Order: sequence, then structure tokens, then C-alpha cells
Amino acid sequence: MENVYYERVEALRALMRERGWDAVVVSGSDPHSSEYPAPRWKQVEWLSGFTGEAGDIVVTASHAGLWTDTRYFIQAVRQLEGTGIVLHKTRVPEQVLIPEWLAGEALGGRDRCVVVAVDGLCQGVSAVAGLKAAFAAVGRTDGSPDEDGFRIVSVPDMLEALWEDRPPVPQTPIITLGADLAGEDRLSRIEWLRGRAAAAGCDAVLLTALDEIAWLLNVRGSDIEYNPLVISYLLVSRGGVEWFVRKSGHLDEDTLDSFQELKDDGIDILPYDDVAFTLAGEISDGVVERLLVDPSTLNYNLYNILETNSPEGTVVEWDSPVALRKALKNKVEIEGMRDIHVDDGVAMERFLYWLEKSVNGGGAVTEWDAARRLGELRAQVPGYRGDSFETISAYGEGAALPHYITPRVDAPVLEPHGLYLVDSGGQYMNGTTDITRTVPLGPCTMLEKEDYTLVLKGHIDLAMAVFPRGTAGCQLDVLARSPLWRAHRNFGHGTGHGVGFFLGVHEGPQDIRQNFNQTPILPGMITSNEPGIYREGMHGVRHENLVLCVEDGSSDFGDWLRFETLTLCHFDTSAIIVDLLGRDEIEWLNAYNARVCSALSPLLPPEEAEWLAHKCHAI
Amino acid sequence: MENVYYERVEALRALMRERGWDAVVVSGSDPHSSEYPAPRWKQVEWLSGFTGEAGDIVVTASHAGLWTDTRYFIQAVRQLEGTGIVLHKTRVPEQVLIPEWLAGEALGGRDRCVVVAVDGLCQGVSAVAGLKAAFAAVGRTDGSPDEDGFRIVSVPDMLEALWEDRPPVPQTPIITLGADLAGEDRLSRIEWLRGRAAAAGCDAVLLTALDEIAWLLNVRGSDIEYNPLVISYLLVSRGGVEWFVRKSGHLDEDTLDSFQELKDDGIDILPYDDVAFTLAGEISDGVVERLLVDPSTLNYNLYNILETNSPEGTVVEWDSPVALRKALKNKVEIEGMRDIHVDDGVAMERFLYWLEKSVNGGGAVTEWDAARRLGELRAQVPGYRGDSFETISAYGEGAALPHYITPRVDAPVLEPHGLYLVDSGGQYMNGTTDITRTVPLGPCTMLEKEDYTLVLKGHIDLAMAVFPRGTAGCQLDVLARSPLWRAHRNFGHGTGHGVGFFLGVHEGPQDIRQNFNQTPILPGMITSNEPGIYREGMHGVRHENLVLCVEDGSSDFGDWLRFETLTLCHFDTSAIIVDLLGRDEIEWLNAYNARVCSALSPLLPPEEAEWLAHKCHAI
Repeated sequence: MENVYYERVEALRALMRERGWDAVVVSGSDPHSSEYPAPRWKQVEWLSGFTGEAGDIVVTASHAGLWTDTRYFIQAVRQLEGTGIVLHKTRVPEQVLIPEWLAGEALGGRDRCVVVAVDGLCQGVSAVAGLKAAFAAVGRTDGSPDEDGFRIVSVPDMLEALWEDRPPVPQTPIITLGADLAGEDRLSRIEWLRGRAAAAGCDAVLLTALDEIAWLLNVRGSDIEYNPLVISYLLVSRGGVEWFVRKSGHLDEDTLDSFQELKDDGIDILPYDDVAFTLAGEISDGVVERLLVDPSTLNYNLYNILETNSPEGTVVEWDSPVALRKALKNKVEIEGMRDIHVDDGVAMERFLYWLEKSVNGGGAVTEWDAARRLGELRAQVPGYRGDSFETISAYGEGAALPHYITPRVDAPVLEPHGLYLVDSGGQYMNGTTDITRTVPLGPCTMLEKEDYTLVLKGHIDLAMAVFPRGTAGCQLDVLARSPLWRAHRNFGHGTGHGVGFFLGVHEGPQDIRQNFNQTPILPGMITSNEPGIYREGMHGVRHENLVLCVEDGSSDFGDWLRFETLTLCHFDTSAIIVDLLGRDEIEWLNAYNARVCSALSPLLPPEEAEWLAHKCHAI
Repeated sequence: MENVYYERVEALRALMRERGWDAVVVSGSDPHSSEYPAPRWKQVEWLSGFTGEAGDIVVTASHAGLWTDTRYFIQAVRQLEGTGIVLHKTRVPEQVLIPEWLAGEALGGRDRCVVVAVDGLCQGVSAVAGLKAAFAAVGRTDGSPDEDGFRIVSVPDMLEALWEDRPPVPQTPIITLGADLAGEDRLSRIEWLRGRAAAAGCDAVLLTALDEIAWLLNVRGSDIEYNPLVISYLLVSRGGVEWFVRKSGHLDEDTLDSFQELKDDGIDILPYDDVAFTLAGEISDGVVERLLVDPSTLNYNLYNILETNSPEGTVVEWDSPVALRKALKNKVEIEGMRDIHVDDGVAMERFLYWLEKSVNGGGAVTEWDAARRLGELRAQVPGYRGDSFETISAYGEGAALPHYITPRVDAPVLEPHGLYLVDSGGQYMNGTTDITRTVPLGPCTMLEKEDYTLVLKGHIDLAMAVFPRGTAGCQLDVLARSPLWRAHRNFGHGTGHGVGFFLGVHEGPQDIRQNFNQTPILPGMITSNEPGIYREGMHGVRHENLVLCVEDGSSDFGDWLRFETLTLCHFDTSAIIVDLLGRDEIEWLNAYNARVCSALSPLLPPEEAEWLAHKCHAI
């Protein structure tokens, strides 16, 4: 075998033998448990060639496996060919997750102490706790090498020795947002967090989630593609605020200006790599007495250093309250999101106009051409800072993969029939967008029309929902699925994810899906509404708008909430089977398209405005 | 004050002073955590006069409180008048439950050990664990009287000394069900349970939930009103089966026959009160090595005796698997349930015919008369063994109380206008029924019609649901509520509860409500579908059928389930606002009424059959 990844796995095994490790867990995340890691931390991709957005690898002397979920099965099988790495499926009923697999099948039978090496920087505290619990469940406790137990060895940057040309920690320009854009200044947010810490009986908080830090400080960067984040840690203590960010070396003008603004607010700027050393010092000096950390985003390496260098009771775990407060957008953020959806809608409509003309004009437009064209139109919007994720531009059977990646070379050509799906979004100074439209490019089959209509029916039913305060997303999800279910159809992803304000396009704590997440959907939360359907080898449909939860008055029966749809872009009515929609659903659709038309027409060239008016005719 | 309950609370306080108890918790349940206790264990009612089906009392030197939920607030306020007992509301956002209240407000400030007395027989292991956790949360640990902690004192039959003429443990006739009725014999069920115990590494199981024992042994009694249960404990061990039931004394013929049948199956019959002594002996003799108990129904007293008299690791906690298996009705049980709903439907239709004629005939029919008439008609059904709960017969504003109790004397007279609600059910040898109909007795207001129609719309939407295997009730509940929510209306109870086969009319583990119960709705489960609406001082509406979960085939998207409606009794169409219903909802309603008509007409006298055909005309 000459597969490069096969060789890398073998090199890792050599390292394992040298160090006496029975198993190595390679995480697909970064030191901040980010959903999308910067290139430096794409260790799974480096080791296996797998490029999916979720996946972890375990290597033992005799086995190498990749654990990933339903979304990436097809891709994983293809990319792992020749690597010797085996796919382990997750989010399926029969799944055996890494901790249980290691504690059972892989290492369960050994009669000596088993050593599991993890890159403690890229493993969260919770993940390592999961490993420990699994070993404890089979009766193996943390022990010395001589005992019949197991040991977890934390090796920061474990693969560094094997990985030539490993990318450095990113250092992109840092900008700040004023209260005119963010609706609240950083000192007010810092004071709020101090209050929460005090209420928990603690004098300091370590923030480790990158979106929480960006939100609290009103800073943005572009250290991670599509995510306007800055790789850093933040300590908020009674006496001060310390931001661990950047290394020494050349800093650009934007960053220097931003640092000055933060220093004027009394915030100390310290080197990123100093966080462990500095914090341990502050604890031993008594500057920090009780430190709050969130184990869901704190990495095991830092946790370990803090735990072993401080008196018992110093490190206190909590669920960071920043996630919820960040999700509850303030008035300024909401206005920004409403505004940017007008501009983003204009870009989308101009794109759809161009698409229709181009595909019908006879020129060979590929999926890649279309994605590029959409990116160009979005880039013309004032305040544009990049896309919010990689555009999915997929025609026909390509759209049957919910996370299809449009090829740059030899992309399929769009033909004037069937369904084309485009899922895209922008990052702007005043908000983040995420929209999917499924576009009939010409005549469609009956099955395509049924799927198009039933998914739209579910989208509308969720958009029309009214619900009492306290209702969680998992209690609403069925509204989007029921029309599909009654036709024995379904989709395998969530119906809705939270969306940040010029932050991650995926954020918690709320969602709308078939889980048991008890977080209620509250006024100010922005969530996607994106049911779909996927037929392998045929077509895919997804209709996605962002919806804002708003108050809807009170009655004898309590306080009521509903959704306001933020996204502005018409739904094509040509593929709809009208008989499948109810009266109220048709009314919603006509009103929505009319609203889109009146909001966007004035901002479009006359010919395009006329085209939009035609597209928005009531059915 | 001369209120008898006030005096009883004072007598209890005297006992508390004598024994050195700071607080007493009086449970509304029995030694088996039954939903409905026999009169012997209605300690809350004896102490306070409160007759609601859920409620616990706490008495301290300076405070006496009753904790009960939304259903009983109005009733509790009325019944507690003059008792000195204060209502504490549960199932409201601001609730403070007994453990937290005791650990905080009531006893939190004391600087010595606090003693809490509970009737360990009537407190479940889980409830006592809740008390301990609450005290631990405020830093008070289980300690000696000298320490700054707390102690829980278990006092079986604590109120016995104060309670003259306390009823004895009930001893009603015991009958058995053959496999022709139950679909499976007891030896097969016992073997299954032994297998589950072995799989959990244990050699014995103690069953404590009365419905689980009745199901496993195929026995029925009537020890608890409306519940065909036998007060008992059951030990299934590797070597034998021991049923702890009845005391010495006279036994009726049915019971003697049943005992003989069980003995022939190798089951030992032992005195109820011997359970603790016998079990402890078997453990110390090594006959039982590892005993499975379910802390959700095992009482604290028995648990304590077992725990303190056996080596560590002997008593193993689990969730009894009987609850789930019992909920998955077998083919014979399902056929029984289908059959009995024909007979029960005939009784209901004959009642509704009589009701319409009587109310319009000018005679003064009261709520009580109606309830009695319905009971008489149901009693004519072959295999009738009593009602499955106390009939709610409520006209107008009475129906606004979801758990209204029809007064025997001076019950309101039914008038030929507005809405009458009747919620009732029967226990039969081949099944259990539970049905609610809301009957327009003549002209209705627009609000009554709207409420009637929107609740029916929700009922139909849930009845029509199709869902993938694995879906839980909390993920379907919104289907029944959404039509009400969109009109800013709601109801404060669950949409559906499990129903037993000639067993409790309420059973788990599944339900359909706004909770996060992860138990899926599976084929063979029978659940109620009963949305409603209640307007204080005006009217109440509830439409309830029982539905059976059945398979609905497979598709590319998985395995599908749906509901088959078991209940057969027409929905009155005269109060429906047709415009509020969709096409598919109208189709469902017409098909249902047509099915009712064709199933029941042949079994009705000609005049009544003709009347039913008229009632079932399509809209």
C-alpha cells in the first residue's frame, strides 16, 4: 500500500510502541471544542483524509477506526479507501461510541493496565470523563501501570512530531463592534458575567468557547473559515479581565487598534499560550479563589493543569450562562438581523433571476458557476465579511446528500428540468444569514413535486406555530415533519439550529429537532426552519428560512409566542401541488411571497423587479 | 376552632413533641406507591379532609401545608378551610416542592440536628432519596442528633395511634384470568422475568407495584376502588415464586380457588405482613443472593429492612421491565380491547339516546341521574366488573373543572342548551375503557362551538398521526394542541395516558404530554387521546378516545406507526363550526362516525339505531 494516510497511521503506531500507548484517540475538534476547527487542528483530516465536519479517530495496534454520523457515511467510505481505517457509524441505533468500544471490544480483555493517549488540548473535559466512565463501568479504575486498570495520558499536540508543515495557530485581523451594532457594550456584559459568577459563589470565570468570548468582548476575527472568531481564552475575575490571544510577532493595524480599544476598557491582553501558566499563578497567589469553568468547552489539558495546581474546590464546573444570554438577541441585534435579511434577500433574488435566465439561455452553467455567482452577489452587500459556511450548490442527485460539497472541477451542469438546491449564507457586520431554496429549473416529475410541496407544507406549519412560553423545540419539531410522516417520508437531520449575530451560523442552546433538549424557545432567539427530503440518486429538497421568536400577546390561557420569518426570498410556486396544501397554508405562502416582493422590489433593477412580481403571484 | 381536621393536626403536633420530631411528612399514597390508595391509606384525607387524588402533607410545629397540583387548587382551598392547613401549589413555575421547602424555609436555619418523621410504609424509596438530596444540597448531612445535620425517622403506620376506626388492609375476592383472556399464562411471564433478572446478574426480583403483580400472575381483585388489584408483594427467585397476600382469617370461595390454581403452578402463598421477615431470612440463608427492587414503587420501610439486614450489594435497584412489557398488549389482549369497545360503545350510545330524549322531554335530569343511568347501562355488559374510575358527569360550568366530582345530592339539572361533559369507563374481563364525550344539549354559544370544534380538531390531528418507530409521546403532543394554541387557547392536563388491560386506567411507561418522557409509543400500546379546554364559570370541553398504536408499513424512510382508534361512540356534529376543520379532518370525522354507526347499529333497538344513523350523518 502506498496510501499516504495508511503510512501516517503506521507512523503513529510506531510512536505508540515507542511510548507504550495501547490506544490513541485523535479528536476532530480544537482546544475550544469548536464545531469547525482551524487547519492547525484538522488532525483527523491529516491522519485519514476524511474531510467531514464531525469525526474522531481511534488507533490501536490492530485497528484504526473513524467514528462519524449519518451525514458522512457515504463520504467516509469513499475517503477512507486504502487508508486501512474502518468506518464506525454513529447516530444509528446500534452505535458503539468510542468510550464503550475502547473499554469493551478493543481493550476490555487485557489483564494489565491499559494506556490510552489523548491530545489533551483537543479533548474536552466531558469527552475524557466519558472515557473514564466507560472504563469504570467495566470495572477498570484509573490505576498505576502494574494494576488491572487503565490510564489516560494527555499529550498536547501529540501528532506534531509526525506532521511536517503543520499550520500555526491562526492570527487574522481582529475588529471590534460598537454598541451601535451589538446593542450593548463589553463593560456591561462583563459586569453581568461578574454578577452571575458572584451568585454562584465564585470570583472568576474562565471562558473557553470562542463564540462566547467574541460576544462578551464585542470582537470579531476570522481565525476559522466562515466563523468570525478569534482563537483565545478569557478570564473575567473580580479585579480585572485578561484576554489570552495572539502570540508575539507582527500584528496588523486592525488588531492593534482593537487591542488599544480593549485596553482603554481596562482589559489586559496576554499571550494565548500563557493561559495555563498565568492562571495557575493567580490561583497560587490567591488572586483567584474560586474559578468557574464550563467542562463542555474547556480542554482536558488546561483543566488538568488547573486541577493539579490548585487547592480542592478552586475549580468549579458550571454550564456557562453566556450561551443562553447570547442566544437572546437584543433590540439592536434584531434590527440588524431584519435589515441584513433585506440585503441578503436582494442578493438571493438577483441570483435566482440570473440562474433562471442562464439555465434557460442554453449556456452550460455548472453547480460551481452558480455558487460563485451567488458569492459575488452577496459580496456586493455593504458590511459583507464572508460567507457563513461553504455554499451547497447541488443539482438533481447531488442535492440528495444533505452536506454535498460542490466540486470545483467538472461540477455537474444545471439542466432546464428537475430541482436545484442552494444552501448558503453570509456573515455581515449586522448579522448572519442562512437560507436554502430548492429551485425547479423546468419540468419536474410528480415525485419531485410531491416532495417539494410536502416539505414546504411542513416548513409553513412550523412557521405558523403559536405556542405557550416554556415550549421547547423538540415539542414543536413534529409540526415540520407531520406532512412528510403522513406520506411515510422523513429527513435525517434537525429541523432547526440556533443562529448567532455575526457569529457562528450554528449556536445553542436551543434547537428544533427530534431530541429531548429542554431549553425553551424564547423571544429573541433566532433559529432555522429547514425541513427537507433526500432521495439517493434522484433529488433533494430543503426549504430554509431563519425565524425569530417573538411575543404574541396573552390570554386567559397564558403568554403566547410565535415565529417571525426573517429571511426574505420567494418560494417558487411552479412545483407546488396545490391540493396538498390547506387553506391556511396557501394563505401563509401568498402573504409571504407578497411580503418578499414588496420589501425587495424597490431595491432591484426594473426588469428583475418585474420578474419577482411575476414569481410572487398568489396561487 | 372546632374543625375536626384542625384538631387532628394538633393531635399530631402533640405526638411530634412527645417523640422529638421537627417535621412529619404524610404521604397520599400506600405501601406500593399506588396512584389510588385503599381507604386504610387515605391518611391525607383523614388528616385534612382533602379528597383530591394527589396530595401530601407536611406538619411542623408552626406550619401545616398540603402540596397538590393545578387540578385540585380550587377544591383544596375549599376543603382546607378551617383546618389551619395551607395550600402549596405544585406543577406551577414557582413551585417549591416538599424536600426543598423542608430543607430551606421550614428547617433550614436551625443549628442542631433536625428530625423528619415519615411513614416509611407509605413513602417510596425515591421520595425519601429526594428528601436526603435536598438536605445534602443545603449542606446538612445525615447525622446524629448532636450534629448540625438531619435525620429521617421511618415510623410505619405513624398515625395509627391517633386514627380511631382506621380501616384494615382490604381483602376482596381474588379471581384469575386464563390464557384465553390474558393471551399468556403466568408461568411464561414468570420465566420471562427470571430471564431478565439473570441478564441483570441477579437471582431474584421483588415486585411491589400492584398492577405489575396482577399482570404477572394473571390475577385480579378489587382491593382498591375502580382498580382490579390485589394488595400484595411478589418474590420471583430462581427456585420459586412467593406471593405475600392476605392475612389469616376467612377467605372467600373465589380466593380459595385462585390460591389453589396458583399453588398448582408452584406458587407459594404467604401472609402479606410476612414479606420483610421472610425476605430477610432468605437473604441471610443465602437463598436470595442478589435481589432486584424498583425504587419507584418499593416503600422505604421495606427497603430499609432489606438494606440493613443484608450484605452490601444484595439489594440491586432497577427500573422494573414489567411496566413496559405490560404496556405492549398481546394479540389476545388487543382483540379483547377491540371487542369490549363495541359493547362499551353500545352502552354509551344507549346512554346518549336516553340523555337527549330525557333532557328534551322536560323531566328534570340531574348530573347525578345521568351518571347513574350510564352506570346501569354499562353494568348490563357481559363481563362488567365495575367502573374504571368515578364517572364525571358535569353540565356547563361544572365541566370547567377537569376533575369535577358530581354531587349525590342537589346535583345541577341538565338544561336543553349548552354543553354537558361525561368522562367514564368500565372494567371488564376482557379490557378497560375510558371515554369522554362533550354533548351539546341544545343551542350553544359561538364560544362553546369554537371550543368544541378546536378541541375536536386537535383530537383528530393526533388520531391521524403517522410517525416513525422511536417517536415519543412528548414529540407528538403538539399535534393535539396546535389548533388550540393558534387561537391562544390551551389545556392544563396531559393529552394521553396509558391504559391497562383489565387493570389500571392509568398506566405507564408511555404518555402523550408536554414533558420529556423518552419512552417511545410502540405497537401494542394503548393510550388515551383527550385534549380539552376549560373556562371557569362557563363550560368545559374534552373529547376522549382510546387509541392503539399499530404498524403502518415501511418505506425508504423507515418503519411507520399510526393509531387505531378503539373507542366506538359518535362525535356530535351539531356544535361543529365546519369552517374551522380542514378537508382531511372532516373526512376523518365522517369516516369515524360511519364506522361507529355500522359497528353499533346492529346491536341497538331499532329506534335507537335510527337515531344513531341520524347522528352519524356526514357533514
